[in-house]
Amino acid sequence: MTYAEMTPALRREEYAKVSAAFESWKAKGLKLNMARGKPSKQQLDLVSDILTVLTDPADCMDEGIDARNYGELAGLPCARRYFADVLGCRPEQVFAGGSASLTLMYDTIAKGVTHGLLHSERPWSQEAGLKWLCPAPGYDRHFKITESFGFELLTVPMTEEGPDMDLVEQYVKDPKVKGMWNVPKYSNPDGIIYSDETVRRLAALKPAAPDFLLMWDNAYCIHEFDGDFVPFPDILSLCEQNDNADMVFEYASTSKVTLPGAGISCFACSEANLKYMTKLMSIQLISYDKVNQLRHVKYLKDRAHTLELMKKHAAVMGPKFRLVTDTLAREVAPLGIASWHTPKGGYFVSVNAMPGCAKRALALAKEAGVVMTDAGATFPYGKDPQDSNIRVAPSLPPLSELEDAMAVFCLCLRLAALEKLDA
Amino acid sequence: MTYAEMTPALRREEYAKVSAAFESWKAKGLKLNMARGKPSKQQLDLVSDILTVLTDPADCMDEGIDARNYGELAGLPCARRYFADVLGCRPEQVFAGGSASLTLMYDTIAKGVTHGLLHSERPWSQEAGLKWLCPAPGYDRHFKITESFGFELLTVPMTEEGPDMDLVEQYVKDPKVKGMWNVPKYSNPDGIIYSDETVRRLAALKPAAPDFLLMWDNAYCIHEFDGDFVPFPDILSLCEQNDNADMVFEYASTSKVTLPGAGISCFACSEANLKYMTKLMSIQLISYDKVNQLRHVKYLKDRAHTLELMKKHAAVMGPKFRLVTDTLAREVAPLGIASWHTPKGGYFVSVNAMPGCAKRALALAKEAGVVMTDAGATFPYGKDPQDSNIRVAPSLPPLSELEDAMAVFCLCLRLAALEKLDA
Repeated sequence: MTYAEMTPALRREEYAKVSAAFESWKAKGLKLNMARGKPSKQQLDLVSDILTVLTDPADCMDEGIDARNYGELAGLPCARRYFADVLGCRPEQVFAGGSASLTLMYDTIAKGVTHGLLHSERPWSQEAGLKWLCPAPGYDRHFKITESFGFELLTVPMTEEGPDMDLVEQYVKDPKVKGMWNVPKYSNPDGIIYSDETVRRLAALKPAAPDFLLMWDNAYCIHEFDGDFVPFPDILSLCEQNDNADMVFEYASTSKVTLPGAGISCFACSEANLKYMTKLMSIQLISYDKVNQLRHVKYLKDRAHTLELMKKHAAVMGPKFRLVTDTLAREVAPLGIASWHTPKGGYFVSVNAMPGCAKRALALAKEAGVVMTDAGATFPYGKDPQDSNIRVAPSLPPLSELEDAMAVFCLCLRLAALEKLDA
Repeated sequence: MTYAEMTPALRREEYAKVSAAFESWKAKGLKLNMARGKPSKQQLDLVSDILTVLTDPADCMDEGIDARNYGELAGLPCARRYFADVLGCRPEQVFAGGSASLTLMYDTIAKGVTHGLLHSERPWSQEAGLKWLCPAPGYDRHFKITESFGFELLTVPMTEEGPDMDLVEQYVKDPKVKGMWNVPKYSNPDGIIYSDETVRRLAALKPAAPDFLLMWDNAYCIHEFDGDFVPFPDILSLCEQNDNADMVFEYASTSKVTLPGAGISCFACSEANLKYMTKLMSIQLISYDKVNQLRHVKYLKDRAHTLELMKKHAAVMGPKFRLVTDTLAREVAPLGIASWHTPKGGYFVSVNAMPGCAKRALALAKEAGVVMTDAGATFPYGKDPQDSNIRVAPSLPPLSELEDAMAVFCLCLRLAALEKLDA
C-alpha cells in the first residue's frame, strides 16, 4: 500500500515506527558523505602505476618535443591524438589542457565575456540581458559559471531523451540566448543518454545569436559501470554537417579515469574555433602541464586500453549503484513516494522525492550524519521549483558505509513524505 | 676609438671588415635561438629526481589529505607553506596554483574585468578608458595581457632603482589608472633589483582608484646566478603597514626551479583578497593539481633546500651570462655603440643599441640564423620609441652555440651602428 493510499491513522502508526528507526540511526552518530561525485580510494588505487610511468628524463621526450620545457600551447600532439581517439574527433580539433575541464569551460565562456567568441559582434560584457539554457536537473557547477557571469538562467526540463527540444528550439530564436549547457552522456544527475534524435536536433539548431555556444560536457563519455561501452555520436561532425561547425565546444577529462585532482583535460572544437581560441589563450599561458599529459598518454595509451581500465572502475562503482537502486526499490518503491533513474554509467542517481519533500529529507539526513548534495542544487539558482530532486552520489563511501547511508536516506524520504501528507 | 669618433673613411673601412666577417658567419648556416627565457636541457636534467619522488599511493597522503582526490581549492597546506617560506609571507596569504604563474596573473586581471576586485565599484568591463602602468623595458607577456583586455598602456621608464617613481606617483592620481606591472627582483629584461626606496614608495602609493592593482611578479625571487641569495622585502607586509594591504598581488613559480612546463605556481595577497578571490575561483575550479604540488614540496622541501638547487642552476647559467657580457665588453664596449646591464640574477641581458639600430641589428642576426626576441617586445604595444632595446636570453643554447650567437650578434650591432652613422 502506498502512503497516499493509507488512512491517516495507518500513516500515524507508520510515522511512529519510522521515527523510532530514524532515532536509533541518529544515536549511532554516523559521519557519511554522499555529496559530490568523488571517486573512492579504491578507484584511485587502481591507477597507482601512473605515478611511475615516467621516471627518466628520456621518458619525457615525445616526437622531438621535450615535455619538460616551455612550448606547445595546444598540448602535446600525442595528448591531442589520445583525446581525439576517446571522443571520436580529429586531433587538429583538440586542445589538451590541465587538470580540470571545468576550468576550460569557465575560460571559454570567460573569453566570450571579455573578448567575444569567433562570431561575436562584440564581447558579451558589452551586451545586456543575456540568457543561457540550463537543462535541469543538471550540474550545479555549470549553472554557477553562467550565473557568475550574469546570464539569466533559463530552465529546460529534462526528458528521458535529453532536454525538451521543442522548448530549446523555441528559446534559441531569442538572440539574447547565447548558449546552452549539456552533459549528453549519462547526464548529471539523471544519467540519461541523449537520444540520437535529440543530438541531431541540437546539431541542427538555428540560433538567432551568431555566437551561440553549445557547451558539450562529455564528462562521462567512457564511464559505463553497467555493461559495455556505449558508442555516442561525434557532435563536432554533426554540427559541421549542419553548417554549425563553430557552434559547439566539447569537453572531457581523465578526472574520473585516473586522478580527480591531477588528471588531464581537453576541449575539442572546429579548427576555426581552435585557431581563434589559441590566439586568445596564447596571452594567458605558454602551455598546460605537458609532463602530466605525457604521463597520461603513456599510461592510458588509447581508448581501447582506457576502456579496460574503466571496467575496473565499473567493478568498484557497479555494486555501489546497485546497492542504491536496490535499496530504493525495496524500501521506497512500494510506498509511492519517490521515483528515480537506474543509470548504467556516470556518477549519480537522481531521485525525485514527493514534491515539497527534498529539503526536509536532506535536513533529516544531515541530522543523522549523512551529508548529501543540497536540495535544489540540480536547478538554476539552486532552486528546485518542485523541491523534489535529490542527487545521490554513491562513489566515495565504501559499500558498508553506503549501506548505512542509504538506510538512513530511505527513512528520511519516508519521514518527509509522511509529514507532508498529513501537514 | 668609438664609431662616432671615427672619420667616415675609417668607418667605411670598418664596415667592409665587419661585413666580411658577417658574411662568413652567414655562410655557416647557423640555427641558434636566444629568443625566450627558456631553461636549457642541462638545467632540466638537474631535477630529474623530481620524477621519482612520489611513486606510491601512500606518498600522496599529506596531513590527512589525499592529494590524488578533489578538494583544497587554495592548494595543499604544505605547498602554501612552501611558497610562504620562499616569499617571506604567511601561508594564509598564499594560493598554490598550477604550472603557470602567467595564468594566475591573467586570471586576476580577468576577474577584475568580469567581476571587479575586492574594492571595485563595478567590473572593469563596465568602465571606459582604463589605463595600466608598464615599466619599460619590461616583460612582453605582461604588456600583452593588459593590452588584450583593452587597457591603455602607459610607459614608465625604468631607472637603475626600478620604475621612475615620480612619474608613477603622478600617474596614479588618475582614477582610470587601475594597476601596474612589476618584476621587482632581476627585472625582465634589465635585471634590476628595485631599491628599498622604490619598494617603499610603491607600498605607500595613494592611487585614486580604490581597486588599484599592484602586480608583483616575483618571477626571479631566488634566481641568483652570480653570488649568494639576495634578501628582498616582503611587499605584502609593506603594503599592510601603509594601509594598502589589499592593493598588491604577488606571484611566483617553480618554472625556472624545476620544470618550465610542469612546475607549480602561486599568488600571495592579503587574507581579505584571498577570501574574495577564492570565492570567485571556486566557480572556476575545484583545485589545481595537488599531486604535482606535493611532488614539488617533497622535492624542494623549503627555501634553504631550494637555494642549494639554485646554486646548481647558477653553475649552468653563470658562465653563459659571463660569456654574454664579456663578449659585449670586448667586442662592442670600445666602439661606444651600445650599453647594457650586468645582472646577477634573472634570465636576461638587456642591451641598448644605438638608437634606431635594434630592429636592423636583429634583422641582420636573423639573416645569419640567430633568432632573438623581437625588437620592441620589451615596450608596450611592441614599440620601442628609441628602437634601441634588445633582450638577450642566453639560457637555452649550450655555451659553444652561445659563443657563436654572441659573435654574430656583436657583428650585427656594429653593422647596424655603422649603417646608421653614415645613413
